[in-house]
Amino acid sequence: MFAHNKRLQYTVRVSEPNPGLANLMLEQFGGPQGELAAAMRYFTQAVAEDDPGRKDMLFDIATEELSHLEVIGNIVCMLNKGAKGRLSEAVDEEGEMYRRITGAGNDSHITQVLYGAGAPLTNSAGVPWTAAYIDSISEPTADLRSNIAAEARAKIVYERLIALTPDPGVREALGFLMTREIAHQKSFEKALYAIQPNFPPGKTAGRPEFASVYYNMSQGGPELNGPWNSGEKWQVVSDRDQQMDVDGGGGDATVTLDAGDAELLNAMAARTMSDPGVDPLTGAELGMMADPGQIDSASATGGSVPSTPDGSAPKTGA
Amino acid sequence: MFAHNKRLQYTVRVSEPNPGLANLMLEQFGGPQGELAAAMRYFTQAVAEDDPGRKDMLFDIATEELSHLEVIGNIVCMLNKGAKGRLSEAVDEEGEMYRRITGAGNDSHITQVLYGAGAPLTNSAGVPWTAAYIDSISEPTADLRSNIAAEARAKIVYERLIALTPDPGVREALGFLMTREIAHQKSFEKALYAIQPNFPPGKTAGRPEFASVYYNMSQGGPELNGPWNSGEKWQVVSDRDQQMDVDGGGGDATVTLDAGDAELLNAMAARTMSDPGVDPLTGAELGMMADPGQIDSASATGGSVPSTPDGSAPKTGA
Amino acid sequence: MFAHNKRLQYTVRVSEPNPGLANLMLEQFGGPQGELAAAMRYFTQAVAEDDPGRKDMLFDIATEELSHLEVIGNIVCMLNKGAKGRLSEAVDEEGEMYRRITGAGNDSHITQVLYGAGAPLTNSAGVPWTAAYIDSISEPTADLRSNIAAEARAKIVYERLIALTPDPGVREALGFLMTREIAHQKSFEKALYAIQPNFPPGKTAGRPEFASVYYNMSQGGPELNGPWNSGEKWQVVSDRDQQMDVDGGGGDATVTLDAGDAELLNAMAARTMSDPGVDPLTGAELGMMADPGQIDSASATGGSVPSTPDGSAPKTGA
Amino acid sequence: MFAHNKRLQYTVRVSEPNPGLANLMLEQFGGPQGELAAAMRYFTQAVAEDDPGRKDMLFDIATEELSHLEVIGNIVCMLNKGAKGRLSEAVDEEGEMYRRITGAGNDSHITQVLYGAGAPLTNSAGVPWTAAYIDSISEPTADLRSNIAAEARAKIVYERLIALTPDPGVREALGFLMTREIAHQKSFEKALYAIQPNFPPGKTAGRPEFASVYYNMSQGGPELNGPWNSGEKWQVVSDRDQQMDVDGGGGDATVTLDAGDAELLNAMAARTMSDPGVDPLTGAELGMMADPGQIDSASATGGSVPSTPDGSAPKTGA
Amino acid sequence: MFAHNKRLQYTVRVSEPNPGLANLMLEQFGGPQGELAAAMRYFTQAVAEDDPGRKDMLFDIATEELSHLEVIGNIVCMLNKGAKGRLSEAVDEEGEMYRRITGAGNDSHITQVLYGAGAPLTNSAGVPWTAAYIDSISEPTADLRSNIAAEARAKIVYERLIALTPDPGVREALGFLMTREIAHQKSFEKALYAIQPNFPPGKTAGRPEFASVYYNMSQGGPELNGPWNSGEKWQVVSDRDQQMDVDGGGGDATVTLDAGDAELLNAMAARTMSDPGVDPLTGAELGMMADPGQIDSASATGGSVPSTPDGSAPKTGA
Amino acid sequence: MFAHNKRLQYTVRVSEPNPGLANLMLEQFGGPQGELAAAMRYFTQAVAEDDPGRKDMLFDIATEELSHLEVIGNIVCMLNKGAKGRLSEAVDEEGEMYRRITGAGNDSHITQVLYGAGAPLTNSAGVPWTAAYIDSISEPTADLRSNIAAEARAKIVYERLIALTPDPGVREALGFLMTREIAHQKSFEKALYAIQPNFPPGKTAGRPEFASVYYNMSQGGPELNGPWNSGEKWQVVSDRDQQMDVDGGGGDATVTLDAGDAELLNAMAARTMSDPGVDPLTGAELGMMADPGQIDSASATGGSVPSTPDGSAPKTGA
Repeated sequence: MFAHNKRLQYTVRVSEPNPGLANLMLEQFGGPQGELAAAMRYFTQAVAEDDPGRKDMLFDIATEELSHLEVIGNIVCMLNKGAKGRLSEAVDEEGEMYRRITGAGNDSHITQVLYGAGAPLTNSAGVPWTAAYIDSISEPTADLRSNIAAEARAKIVYERLIALTPDPGVREALGFLMTREIAHQKSFEKALYAIQPNFPPGKTAGRPEFASVYYNMSQGGPELNGPWNSGEKWQVVSDRDQQMDVDGGGGDATVTLDAGDAELLNAMAARTMSDPGVDPLTGAELGMMADPGQIDSASATGGSVPSTPDGSAPKTGA
Repeated sequence: MFAHNKRLQYTVRVSEPNPGLANLMLEQFGGPQGELAAAMRYFTQAVAEDDPGRKDMLFDIATEELSHLEVIGNIVCMLNKGAKGRLSEAVDEEGEMYRRITGAGNDSHITQVLYGAGAPLTNSAGVPWTAAYIDSISEPTADLRSNIAAEARAKIVYERLIALTPDPGVREALGFLMTREIAHQKSFEKALYAIQPNFPPGKTAGRPEFASVYYNMSQGGPELNGPWNSGEKWQVVSDRDQQMDVDGGGGDATVTLDAGDAELLNAMAARTMSDPGVDPLTGAELGMMADPGQIDSASATGGSVPSTPDGSAPKTGA
Repeated sequence: MFAHNKRLQYTVRVSEPNPGLANLMLEQFGGPQGELAAAMRYFTQAVAEDDPGRKDMLFDIATEELSHLEVIGNIVCMLNKGAKGRLSEAVDEEGEMYRRITGAGNDSHITQVLYGAGAPLTNSAGVPWTAAYIDSISEPTADLRSNIAAEARAKIVYERLIALTPDPGVREALGFLMTREIAHQKSFEKALYAIQPNFPPGKTAGRPEFASVYYNMSQGGPELNGPWNSGEKWQVVSDRDQQMDVDGGGGDATVTLDAGDAELLNAMAARTMSDPGVDPLTGAELGMMADPGQIDSASATGGSVPSTPDGSAPKTGA
Repeated sequence: MFAHNKRLQYTVRVSEPNPGLANLMLEQFGGPQGELAAAMRYFTQAVAEDDPGRKDMLFDIATEELSHLEVIGNIVCMLNKGAKGRLSEAVDEEGEMYRRITGAGNDSHITQVLYGAGAPLTNSAGVPWTAAYIDSISEPTADLRSNIAAEARAKIVYERLIALTPDPGVREALGFLMTREIAHQKSFEKALYAIQPNFPPGKTAGRPEFASVYYNMSQGGPELNGPWNSGEKWQVVSDRDQQMDVDGGGGDATVTLDAGDAELLNAMAARTMSDPGVDPLTGAELGMMADPGQIDSASATGGSVPSTPDGSAPKTGA
Repeated sequence: MFAHNKRLQYTVRVSEPNPGLANLMLEQFGGPQGELAAAMRYFTQAVAEDDPGRKDMLFDIATEELSHLEVIGNIVCMLNKGAKGRLSEAVDEEGEMYRRITGAGNDSHITQVLYGAGAPLTNSAGVPWTAAYIDSISEPTADLRSNIAAEARAKIVYERLIALTPDPGVREALGFLMTREIAHQKSFEKALYAIQPNFPPGKTAGRPEFASVYYNMSQGGPELNGPWNSGEKWQVVSDRDQQMDVDGGGGDATVTLDAGDAELLNAMAARTMSDPGVDPLTGAELGMMADPGQIDSASATGGSVPSTPDGSAPKTGA
Repeated sequence: MFAHNKRLQYTVRVSEPNPGLANLMLEQFGGPQGELAAAMRYFTQAVAEDDPGRKDMLFDIATEELSHLEVIGNIVCMLNKGAKGRLSEAVDEEGEMYRRITGAGNDSHITQVLYGAGAPLTNSAGVPWTAAYIDSISEPTADLRSNIAAEARAKIVYERLIALTPDPGVREALGFLMTREIAHQKSFEKALYAIQPNFPPGKTAGRPEFASVYYNMSQGGPELNGPWNSGEKWQVVSDRDQQMDVDGGGGDATVTLDAGDAELLNAMAARTMSDPGVDPLTGAELGMMADPGQIDSASATGGSVPSTPDGSAPKTGA
């Protein structure tokens, strides 16, 4: 069960309202690398987890991320505080409000007009948060790696926000939030490497003949090698023919059809064949004629179309 | 700040695994009327709220909804518990696993194959949760009404899930969750009606001449009246002409353009005019000719197309 | 069946083109609180409704909302009229067009470049309209509340647009549209309260022991009470222990598994256990070594990895 | 199988970085009419196609579109090159970075802050690419028409980007890409018209009595005729009554229910009837009372509510 | 302005409820090729259109598509009529309701549980309708082609629904709806070809040297030629080297940076260089060691990590 | 530039059509962990990458993933081959087609009806692919970790598909594809660890006082420790008070407002205050009265409402 305390995990001190900056902060509120994504990622894993130690850790961190969501949400709302009253209570004179809203220079207009200067669960472009951001699949040797990567990304986006934020109180709180992503990454790393073996992830082994091959698929310039494709651990395949049909079966796709299915597919093929032996007049060619009147609709089609109103006589009805 | 306790708000007792039922329960986990939507709806309002009493209430209820999210998530995971180990650890024999997964009769296949029998934030059709479900706009006379409606909807979906659930332990927990939606609706009602006046919502009054008109837009059968469109509070307008151009300005849309813009629009109009005076041969007519060979591409276009390769000579280049 | 008349319901008089303002107006065209959402909300309810009076009302209002969609769409198009010809027909000189498009100060660039200065079904941030905005669930005691809330929200967004619009003709038309939301809300209120009883919504009663409890989940500061959580109608629970496990069953989640499922889950648990008794070297630690060369890949793994190329020998193959 | 060569299909020469222009270019990278949409449209058709000639053509063009995706992606990255290092490495002084990012005048802030000045698969408003943009349905007489239309749209968006681009090297590359859409459209036209007949699309003929009718649904002003609704090929129906119930069956919707279903529907109807004969006091009316105290909650409801805590006595329990 | 008449355009006679069939019908209600997409496609074009003839036609057809949306919506609701009452009013006995809902064999469960057996704006998989389905760009030489293609696709999906529908009344109504798509396609074709020239679409001509080239990008098997890539209208380029760098500029991407930007990029490059000259021990290798204890975390990192708690000493602080 | 060869990278041998199995395979075609996500993830990183070695590697692997997309797409199409002809060409008799389509037991109905048994870019639930699945942010110390995690997830989903696939030819091809994910993960690991240091990701160091703290946020049961939260590297904070306000600033959120903004916010607060001192009659209470007639709308509101038609007299007009 969750409980809530009215004090924030970290104090938020904002110098002055700035709806443009508020909007950029949304990146870590309702953006793909933001705190809701983090909280929900770990919470859903925690609920499904059977390992008691990991389950506890996942609830610990999920709960902290919810508390971070509250911190960043408060930053957004403090920065929006001036805009909030203005739209709902002010009497506009001489278009000042329109200039303010469109002049902020980024997407803060939507936060103000649609969301009333609150804290919407969107990214800084106004795109609503989606659970498509969460990549958990209930296998810890994959999910812990996903968590490690997610913490790394969140750390970077905080780093960028710190770099562009002029307000010192906001920078300080962002610095706290960024640091916690580092700490969380460290926990997830420990949990992953405490599973042995953890590579390859999952249970099923790969096919040995393909597990150390490096296919050199991009060619035509200087080949750059590194430990990812050179050394005795790798077998590099650069020959184009050896990159194809690597099983030697021909490189085709086949299926065995029964007679009924085959017959229907043949009927479809015949009906929809693009005849390679004609050079048909096309709509595009009709569309670039200097004098389209040279082919008159009535004469061109009058003699040849079937007698049914829709010209589709030889087909079978519905 | 949020805190978490390992005990659930309500005990979850599931008789036996049932991935098909688990999938239907997702409706209240990651569906539009589910607990994440509720928790995030109230949490984001709480963060942005300035009224201390409402802010406290919103945090109270948001925190409880998070705890409900945990309860319904546990129901999902218990019902999926059998499926979880099977896909990852079992050795399949004779296609039994395929039959189990496709035979469950609803979308539980995606929960199993993609999400590993965990608790994904999707609805029962596998559609990822989106913040587009949340309609908060930071005006309490609107948001409290949205909350009242959201609780009503959530109550109904629980009612339906209870109706179809054969497992008594699940029914009991669902009954608790459903009841809490009733209690929450009561709180939101009190908070709304403690604002006076609260109708019309917001600050700006309507235009009196249009605020009590009922336009009878759907006609042609028996007219059915009720308090929504009859009685002395309403002025009903059924005459089609009086429904249009209600301001008497002509019912047109106009804008004043400067000369340069007008000239460019005229150029666009001339370039793209569909000439009403011709009956052009069309691509569709080409496509239904009995003998398309009667118009040969080369002869039909050979003499008339311009000499540039793309046939677009009279235009200006990029 | 629908019919259309070329006159608008309300005359649209726009002073001069303004693509930035056009873009903000999209909020009520293709935004979540806009007219398409309203029209489709009531239309789909109307089609499914069995009560003849409500069905008629829903068709009346849906049809009017479609007519409003036309009005707001015409406002958008008039405001975009200058931009429309410019991009498609003008010859740009010295980057003037780029400056115009990026200088408008909000997302009008996408309306111009992608949508050709037309009336796209997006909100003002360019997010495409989605049926996820519609929350109808075919139960009138819930849907009518949803409609009441939707009208309240739409009224507020119009109020905000009026506050920021400098163009008097646009303000006047917006005032009409805003007022109609008030009238519609009044109709839906009458239809809801003409159902008796309408609370709790739906058919199933709640569990009495939980229907009037208020869980005080957010604590740690001054407790603020109001009619939503005080008075004799409410039983307030503030003790953290009494908020948990409210049924007294232990607050756990359990399911009964058959032997086969249990065995597979045990196998998964063993395979994926994060061993609490080791302090493993992690990737993050590798990544912050001052001299990573101190552990050489070949020597560190050379002696210990299995002989199969992918190092996964003890597992079973695909 | 695909192979890659490090040389681009067309050389990209960018004069100087311009993140605002980079952002507009995203329209053809991750936008609905962009190169990923084109490549995936043709690639998925190619994989499913059985006609060997069309399959080859579709793979040819899909592969070229992937190569175009690479060209436009390189334009984006070159234009973003200045922004890339700045956010990640620079030391900001006196808010310069914030001014740069918000001052670009369109949505480039999200490309910089969230995506690190890379090439994200979004449109210029930051909306992520979605396969909902692709409309292939595995019937060549429809898909080829969809392809023709898609090429026409892509051509137009390139035309607009050319019109607003001040950088000559970018204009030149865009001119190449635009021209290739013309060429692709020509190929798809040939492939469509080489199927005979190709209209109506598909196999099933229409019902002749409805295939040449033009319903004049929009009336009330000057009727404008053209070849789309006049001439002897069309039967125009303007009478409103003749537009409805065109089959003469009454224009109703009916279904035959068994007794059990009918009884349940009747129960639902009775439970949820909006009584047309009352004028109930509504929540909105409570909300606009001058003195809401005139109706006291306790007295108004005290005597009448049922004795169960949730006031829902006459209903059946869960 | 729109008006509504209570009679449908076509009578809907359903033999008996069938929620599985209802669900499939949703494809033409809220699916990508369905009637809402059609109505909104033409309605938004109509609002933005300046050509009076096309504007009238677009309103005519948009209005008819809305009327078709009503017809297909009624089909859905009649087929769902049995399910509607059952979930909300029935008393379940022995799990019958669960078996009914999961046994229907497709996604009808979501229509029943979430949407209450109404007519939701989703496709048959439960995916909510999105305006991303609409591809209008306010250029008639493109939009009319999009409309032609859209009608072709809608016709095909109706054809498929007819093929699978066992209910004769439903088949009849579907046949009407399918036929109208044919008629609409004919109107759009006439409107397109009444614009001369209409190819290439838009205003800007292509670059002649690239407009008739066919790049043979897919090779390695029998080359199949047709009018789309052979004949004297085409210049086929099969040589891989001639397909690249077609402008002869080198096939690279370049931008000129000022010194400050270049320095920052160099700093980023140095910081993030993947050193090609080492073979670092990786996390994956740690994860597949037979005896992970051979490298102890404390000893491996103890001597080398910096003295700050997070091991990141040489960097500059936030 | 990309090139294509008609041979597949791996031969696809399907025993017999099975549209239900085809549908599950879509998970790796258009699902979040599928091959399009992989190809686009690496391709977009490659385009934006400045490090020549990593750029080459990213293009190598992106190109191979495109080739895998082709392999899995061919598996889908072969499994769908029977369904393809049936819907488009067969004459249905006695509802057989409906039974086949709904009887497959998962979402294959949408692949058949909407997508014509082709290879749509959706997951197995019919959800369209979205670029929201891609988490690249143009910082290699984060992106390479994201790639490692993505390969781990893709490996697992292949493992699950292998486990449920009865067709031996499909299993063999899936085994190849799964193994390649292992090889790719190995390459990305080498590239990551060849950057030194790579932890913490990015450039900015964390705040040392928070980088090794573990907040024990989930309590109330047995505490489970492991290397992620115990040992001398961690400072564990379990005291609830010490988890809050960790900077000692009070745990509040504050902003300094100018007088004008403050006044407007006060006006909004006064207008929207939920008065804690009243117990207002609510809509819900109206809705549960046994005899709603006891409060008559006319009498209750007649004397008190203002004289304007909408009852909103004391407010200022639009």
